[in-house]
Amino acid sequence: MKRPVVVTEVPRPEPALVEQLAAYGVATVHEALGKEGLLLPYLRPIYPDAHVAGAAVTVLCPPGDNLMVHAAIEVCRPGDVLVIATEAPSMDGMFGELLATSARAHGVLGLVVDAGVRDVAALSAMRFPVWSRTISARGTVKETAGAVNIPVVCGGTLIRPGDVILGDADGVVRVPRQGLAQTIAQAAARTAKENATRERLAAGELGLDIYGLRAKLQALGVEYVRYADWEG
Amino acid sequence: MKRPVVVTEVPRPEPALVEQLAAYGVATVHEALGKEGLLLPYLRPIYPDAHVAGAAVTVLCPPGDNLMVHAAIEVCRPGDVLVIATEAPSMDGMFGELLATSARAHGVLGLVVDAGVRDVAALSAMRFPVWSRTISARGTVKETAGAVNIPVVCGGTLIRPGDVILGDADGVVRVPRQGLAQTIAQAAARTAKENATRERLAAGELGLDIYGLRAKLQALGVEYVRYADWEG
Amino acid sequence: MKRPVVVTEVPRPEPALVEQLAAYGVATVHEALGKEGLLLPYLRPIYPDAHVAGAAVTVLCPPGDNLMVHAAIEVCRPGDVLVIATEAPSMDGMFGELLATSARAHGVLGLVVDAGVRDVAALSAMRFPVWSRTISARGTVKETAGAVNIPVVCGGTLIRPGDVILGDADGVVRVPRQGLAQTIAQAAARTAKENATRERLAAGELGLDIYGLRAKLQALGVEYVRYADWEG
Amino acid sequence: MKRPVVVTEVPRPEPALVEQLAAYGVATVHEALGKEGLLLPYLRPIYPDAHVAGAAVTVLCPPGDNLMVHAAIEVCRPGDVLVIATEAPSMDGMFGELLATSARAHGVLGLVVDAGVRDVAALSAMRFPVWSRTISARGTVKETAGAVNIPVVCGGTLIRPGDVILGDADGVVRVPRQGLAQTIAQAAARTAKENATRERLAAGELGLDIYGLRAKLQALGVEYVRYADWEG
Amino acid sequence: MKRPVVVTEVPRPEPALVEQLAAYGVATVHEALGKEGLLLPYLRPIYPDAHVAGAAVTVLCPPGDNLMVHAAIEVCRPGDVLVIATEAPSMDGMFGELLATSARAHGVLGLVVDAGVRDVAALSAMRFPVWSRTISARGTVKETAGAVNIPVVCGGTLIRPGDVILGDADGVVRVPRQGLAQTIAQAAARTAKENATRERLAAGELGLDIYGLRAKLQALGVEYVRYADWEG
Amino acid sequence: MKRPVVVTEVPRPEPALVEQLAAYGVATVHEALGKEGLLLPYLRPIYPDAHVAGAAVTVLCPPGDNLMVHAAIEVCRPGDVLVIATEAPSMDGMFGELLATSARAHGVLGLVVDAGVRDVAALSAMRFPVWSRTISARGTVKETAGAVNIPVVCGGTLIRPGDVILGDADGVVRVPRQGLAQTIAQAAARTAKENATRERLAAGELGLDIYGLRAKLQALGVEYVRYADWEG
Repeated sequence: MKRPVVVTEVPRPEPALVEQLAAYGVATVHEALGKEGLLLPYLRPIYPDAHVAGAAVTVLCPPGDNLMVHAAIEVCRPGDVLVIATEAPSMDGMFGELLATSARAHGVLGLVVDAGVRDVAALSAMRFPVWSRTISARGTVKETAGAVNIPVVCGGTLIRPGDVILGDADGVVRVPRQGLAQTIAQAAARTAKENATRERLAAGELGLDIYGLRAKLQALGVEYVRYADWEG
Repeated sequence: MKRPVVVTEVPRPEPALVEQLAAYGVATVHEALGKEGLLLPYLRPIYPDAHVAGAAVTVLCPPGDNLMVHAAIEVCRPGDVLVIATEAPSMDGMFGELLATSARAHGVLGLVVDAGVRDVAALSAMRFPVWSRTISARGTVKETAGAVNIPVVCGGTLIRPGDVILGDADGVVRVPRQGLAQTIAQAAARTAKENATRERLAAGELGLDIYGLRAKLQALGVEYVRYADWEG
Repeated sequence: MKRPVVVTEVPRPEPALVEQLAAYGVATVHEALGKEGLLLPYLRPIYPDAHVAGAAVTVLCPPGDNLMVHAAIEVCRPGDVLVIATEAPSMDGMFGELLATSARAHGVLGLVVDAGVRDVAALSAMRFPVWSRTISARGTVKETAGAVNIPVVCGGTLIRPGDVILGDADGVVRVPRQGLAQTIAQAAARTAKENATRERLAAGELGLDIYGLRAKLQALGVEYVRYADWEG
Repeated sequence: MKRPVVVTEVPRPEPALVEQLAAYGVATVHEALGKEGLLLPYLRPIYPDAHVAGAAVTVLCPPGDNLMVHAAIEVCRPGDVLVIATEAPSMDGMFGELLATSARAHGVLGLVVDAGVRDVAALSAMRFPVWSRTISARGTVKETAGAVNIPVVCGGTLIRPGDVILGDADGVVRVPRQGLAQTIAQAAARTAKENATRERLAAGELGLDIYGLRAKLQALGVEYVRYADWEG
Repeated sequence: MKRPVVVTEVPRPEPALVEQLAAYGVATVHEALGKEGLLLPYLRPIYPDAHVAGAAVTVLCPPGDNLMVHAAIEVCRPGDVLVIATEAPSMDGMFGELLATSARAHGVLGLVVDAGVRDVAALSAMRFPVWSRTISARGTVKETAGAVNIPVVCGGTLIRPGDVILGDADGVVRVPRQGLAQTIAQAAARTAKENATRERLAAGELGLDIYGLRAKLQALGVEYVRYADWEG
Repeated sequence: MKRPVVVTEVPRPEPALVEQLAAYGVATVHEALGKEGLLLPYLRPIYPDAHVAGAAVTVLCPPGDNLMVHAAIEVCRPGDVLVIATEAPSMDGMFGELLATSARAHGVLGLVVDAGVRDVAALSAMRFPVWSRTISARGTVKETAGAVNIPVVCGGTLIRPGDVILGDADGVVRVPRQGLAQTIAQAAARTAKENATRERLAAGELGLDIYGLRAKLQALGVEYVRYADWEG
């Protein structure tokens, strides 16, 4: 019933926009999206300053089998990010240094994999950024069909081919291709506002005052009590 | 029935004593306390050499809401450490770079949070030490009351406001304000003893001899058998 | 019924062979072994470039008790790696800086422990490599018998005394002493092949072609469909 | 950016087909679908013989908020199954006896919730089937918007409104509305085949023979060795 | 530094009030308390209809040691509930049929244990209710001191001796002795209100109308869109 | 390097002894073995009163592949218990109603599987006892070799073919074939002693007195303090 397929010629986001988006952090962009699109936090980068922004090429693999990753690399273009999901939970190391070498030769910028990764010392030395669920030396076979560039659930989030993937030390967020310019504008606005707020906070002003929270505390009935007068 | 409250003018430990305590590791102090006060090991530092020692300002938040953290910063003093607990488990990023900027402006030295943290690249660059349960870009709202400076359970351990919080690469330990000088004395004694032991161990002496464990092994019936004679 | 024992004079692998094995990564050796012997991936190194290759001295401890680790160090020889298992799951920090000092004085190269470790800042500074299940400042007592150099299950894998333990950033693999030269030969062959493949991949050739996977995709019925023609 | 919405007049599967599907187990239907659509196994029924088959009405809620569940019930029709996902992981009890009473009054047959459920004694007594991630007495508020009848990720699987939800003791599977008759036919064929096989197996025939696996074992090089001759 | 102690003559709640409280479910009482006091949901009953209400006798044990449980039983009175916490996480079976026999002989009504329990078939046959973190046949020793009737953290919640413990299929909630009558009154009021609501819901009225949520949805900007008009 | 093998004619324990052992609970036998052999408690029975005692036929499978289970059934004899381990963690449902039918036709009494099981409603109705890590409708393929009747690690414990497997509501314990009579004798002695103790405990005697623990408490410095005099 399931039809194994490699979807080609997927529309990508405009590279200039992706470059603009890359200037913002995952937390900022997640807020700009109205708190949508964050992958579950169990996906962690393999080195502390890993960073990526690019277009998703999605791969759906059977657990323990990375055949379709090889098929995916052929349809990757410079600026893409591989996003690997598995049909059932797996911790196997589906991707390592050889695949990273191949991917990079085709312009792939990084990887998000809802399973394991291996050769992490070499990948870190190559500065090939990966966000994975685990690190495992156990490799996979190349025997069973899956799919490339169909919508997949990775890190609990639906990723469509051509979505923008942004990853940093805080995790990974999916940004829809549609409305990308608007998302960037909102991230920029948010950042401008945060920069202004940061200066005031650094100068000692309180969030209570900047955000007008004192009235809210009062409305919620929060009382201030001296420790000496408080009776737990 | 629950009364939302910010408790003020909490007694703090003597700064000179906190400074003395800061010279010892979490493992040493935990032993000095008779193996009490260790927070659960799921609380991990966001960078490898994170270190903190200070007075706990405790915050109890509803999950997904950090309103009370803003209220807490106002009552912080230089040398304090924020300790955030939530009313129900949450992985949301309750604290980020802006709050760290604000906290630092008020002399706060670091954070222990039984939930998520975000902006960890910026926090690491600032050298603002944080021990958290997870890292998540998902932020919180500022809508619901909680409490500041009441006893909270963080990392499975009861923390009272004004307790001393010591954190390093091994985790976080709570040190009661009462008896702090005695705790330091015990940590110092333990350290002196360990220094002496370390020299002997480095010279090749065995723990079996230094700690007098041979008799214990014998009393427990431990036998030494050559591999060739052993029959699994 | 259980007999507490320290087994001595365990046969070790030939040091020259261990040195040869140490040149290969855990992932490569795991493949060379036919995908056997990998410890579960929850065992993680305490610093990113931790590396070890040596002969296993196994230790079975009751949870929360490290008496037998002291007994084990006496029977260690230069080139050994301590492998600690517990009779029931435990997160306690069974090993710290003092034990590492002692172990190193006797030539021990590193540690794999299916429990907790502490003093990780000091251990990292010493460059004493450790793979552990967790990091915890909570220490242990030295009261109850266990065993040294009997087969143990560590990280879900049976480890026999004298097995070769290889650890790197990808995890830990157990290599049987028997057939070690053959394992090395297979790792070498695999590496040579991978080096050749890496060059081709770096030049842009596809795994699809190098590994002959196109026929497999076809046999599996994988279709290529243009995005514009695909109807999800 | 996110638009809070309640989608109405969602097409449902044909009731007669759902009734036919209900005769098959989740495992059988999952196979009939080519191993697609299974929700992650952390979703467990609250009582052992829970069973449901119906049309998905999907609900996306902020964590800790069940406002949209109330909105969803209004658009439910007899034969529907509620499917609740949250924007971030939550263990709160989002659904209890009162909501079940209301849901049942509108013909809702059961619930799949990727969070917590409460009042499970009452729900079990009502025989209202629920598959949940956890059981928790902690309730939710009704303050924040979400969505009804948009595609959601529940149990790691994309569920669209109007999909067929089938749940039993083995878990929950999503069955696409399109091709439902074909899925049923395949489940029926599979069941017929299994019934025939069951009889042969019960009579002592071996799967090795029925499925023709002896040749496969031989091709894979599996050897038969007497225990007395085997040298581990 | 830690002083091992058995605290005696702890004030208990009034039995008549405990009996009244026992009529309400954990979810109702948790709400009546303003969402305070719920133990983490990993504490599950060993049989589906387990139920208990009584006064907490608290026990703090080292992991793997139940000496203090024996000490605790001596200070139990009819109507008490044992609450066992451990100094570090443990899954060992700290309590079994013999201890239940002894506890029952002294009027103890049930057990909450933040560790393991064993003999669950026998305990279920005795109808001795237990909420535990796990079930494990691994027993404990009786060697090391702890404490009885001091405040403990169990299931992430601070429990004081003499608190009321209420457990049912939804989990366990701690109810402070102070204000117990008021808690019961609030639970009763809540129940009365829920009974009225249940009738209306059963008759087909919607929560949207009963709770006045339509205005809230509108204020939040929730739109109703026909499926045919919706463009995901 | 790994040699796929089916080991035949494995020595079994004496049936009369297995029958005797079956009269004792897992907790009792685990104690009789000196606290050895318990499988990790994540292995849970699929129905509450599941019980089994028999000889282990061990199966090692690649994750997601149950080919070798079919091979195993051929070499099973009446009174055997299947023990399935996987080469890497897997949650797939490796065993269901058809395999149970086949296994039972060959006299197999039950199953312990360190992975998933499916058709649990049917298996429960058949009263075919299974202890598994999870329940999952996701089935497996029959493509890859493994091994039958070699030592495997299941639930963190080494199981050899011909070991006795005892399972009940408390979990699963492995009992070595060697010394089985002695284990039974110790279980019997322990049971006799427990029966005597139970009577005394039921009559109100305290464990403190029966086990002579008062002196131990005193030696450990445990003090008794009236609540009114205690100052936390």
